[in-house]
Amino acid sequence: MTVQAMHVGVLGFGGLGQAAAKVLAPKQEMLLVAAADKHGYAYAAEGLNAQNSIAAYRSQGSLGYLEPFGTLTNLSIEDLIASGNRVDGYFLALPNLPNDFIPSVTKQFITSGWRGVLVDAIKRTSAVEQLLAMGSELQAAGITYLTGCGATPGLLTAAAALAAQSYAEIHKVEITFGVGIANWEAYRATIREDIAHMPGYSVEAARAMTDAEVEALLDKTSGILKLENMEHADDVMLEIAGICSRDRVTVGGIVDTRNPKKPLSTNVKITGRTFEGKISTHTFTLGDETSMAANVCGPAFGYLKAGMQLHKRGIHGIFTAAEIMPQFVK
Amino acid sequence: MTVQAMHVGVLGFGGLGQAAAKVLAPKQEMLLVAAADKHGYAYAAEGLNAQNSIAAYRSQGSLGYLEPFGTLTNLSIEDLIASGNRVDGYFLALPNLPNDFIPSVTKQFITSGWRGVLVDAIKRTSAVEQLLAMGSELQAAGITYLTGCGATPGLLTAAAALAAQSYAEIHKVEITFGVGIANWEAYRATIREDIAHMPGYSVEAARAMTDAEVEALLDKTSGILKLENMEHADDVMLEIAGICSRDRVTVGGIVDTRNPKKPLSTNVKITGRTFEGKISTHTFTLGDETSMAANVCGPAFGYLKAGMQLHKRGIHGIFTAAEIMPQFVK
Repeated sequence: MTVQAMHVGVLGFGGLGQAAAKVLAPKQEMLLVAAADKHGYAYAAEGLNAQNSIAAYRSQGSLGYLEPFGTLTNLSIEDLIASGNRVDGYFLALPNLPNDFIPSVTKQFITSGWRGVLVDAIKRTSAVEQLLAMGSELQAAGITYLTGCGATPGLLTAAAALAAQSYAEIHKVEITFGVGIANWEAYRATIREDIAHMPGYSVEAARAMTDAEVEALLDKTSGILKLENMEHADDVMLEIAGICSRDRVTVGGIVDTRNPKKPLSTNVKITGRTFEGKISTHTFTLGDETSMAANVCGPAFGYLKAGMQLHKRGIHGIFTAAEIMPQFVK
Repeated sequence: MTVQAMHVGVLGFGGLGQAAAKVLAPKQEMLLVAAADKHGYAYAAEGLNAQNSIAAYRSQGSLGYLEPFGTLTNLSIEDLIASGNRVDGYFLALPNLPNDFIPSVTKQFITSGWRGVLVDAIKRTSAVEQLLAMGSELQAAGITYLTGCGATPGLLTAAAALAAQSYAEIHKVEITFGVGIANWEAYRATIREDIAHMPGYSVEAARAMTDAEVEALLDKTSGILKLENMEHADDVMLEIAGICSRDRVTVGGIVDTRNPKKPLSTNVKITGRTFEGKISTHTFTLGDETSMAANVCGPAFGYLKAGMQLHKRGIHGIFTAAEIMPQFVK
């Protein structure tokens, strides 16, 4: 911890938010000062201890119970913003369900008069489109918002944008992910988001499923979720970065909910034509030992740092992970 | 060609500069208006035709002979800058030999009062260090300089910076390139730079070699140059981006000077430790059908476009390819 450390808040304290707290713990350039869940928030200017915060959330169900930093409130995000405590930037580790949840939280930030940096690890094209439509409002509010900053969209989208540089024209961007998690209960919201992408399911239907219903579905598939042609914002992000039209971008993957080992190596393949007329494919492959949490939270904070640099230069509005190089957080 | 197209100059018209002209030919966002070689330059506000420029250079030895746009002069770069013609940005496709050649050209730009964007595809650590030391001069001069923007350093360095996001600590960045060229004579300067990296050779010794001497060396190795622990600026670039100390970065490769097929797939491997304590490796691999020219010139212009956006926002000084996301040029 240094006096120059960025004061960071994490909204949402499920599997992703808790991992975010752990990722931040050893960092010198960022200090976790605030975190919120559905029923409360905790704030400490000197920094929240990740282990204590996670323990309070797990044992009592909310960060609001964390002594002496917690506040119990069902308007946790609103109240945290209104508290006026210094938070330079937030990672929105919130569920993507419903699809307008993150955009509605963003509206709260705009309305509040708070100025700073927001990053999300949102997945759906339609959610990113809602945020992109708020670009001028964000700019007027003095907020620098970086969207799609997880793994996919995020790390893999940026890799595609980078790889595209070798080509005169991009024919195809194919993202294929493998996720292995030991116990799906730690990622309740994420798994429901995945189910929502399966044939015969909608966002609403997946969200309404009880844990028992999710269990029953997973029993039928031996814990495997196979996903194809998913609605992922990588497509709109690469389109607005001018790399290719969105119909040339596909996202699919396999999630094993009963095994921490990945069923396949997550990768993105970028196929294009060079200026000499050659067709070729660049490939970016993630190491199998890296978890979803590492591949989402690391980039999210890397983009938060980059966003802070933009913010300090007076550059506000909305940007995607395909346009900005994330900065390494020490 | 649109009225908003960026007016681009290319300094150096060997293999790389000629490829750059071809890469630019179909672009709408960039117009090649100026190019210079040792003995002259050509300028045309409406754009230089790549084929005609290459034909003039090849048949007569200099762009200075290109009718009606050429000027013969042994101070070609100086005279082109002094001509006062509008050039928004330059790609310095100049030889890296001698090691202070690109820094000395940069001094000319600083002294001239010209304001705009410069990118290079420089290779050596010591050359990039000379440029980094000129950061405040560049900033004061209103120049936005992006260094190390080719393939390695450049595309692969940026991929390493991006991949690093998944990790809490980076242990190793290993760049291994394969290059296949049908006839080394088209890349005389580049091949001498490669030879300079071999045991028993220096930059000066390689530069002083006659074509016959290069031929004789290549005859002994069946046209293969094997390079290890090369002095490549990827190391200093990743160090100043805060990703890892330079001693954790290695660059090596194999150049086949008698076969356009690559002897191995060019790749960068990024090994690190995640926040959970797992050791893993991300890999970015270039498609074998992509040429050195495509992997150098594409990124160089992608960074030139990104540099222009920085320049327009009043952001001047020096940046490396590991800090900035290149933009796709249409």
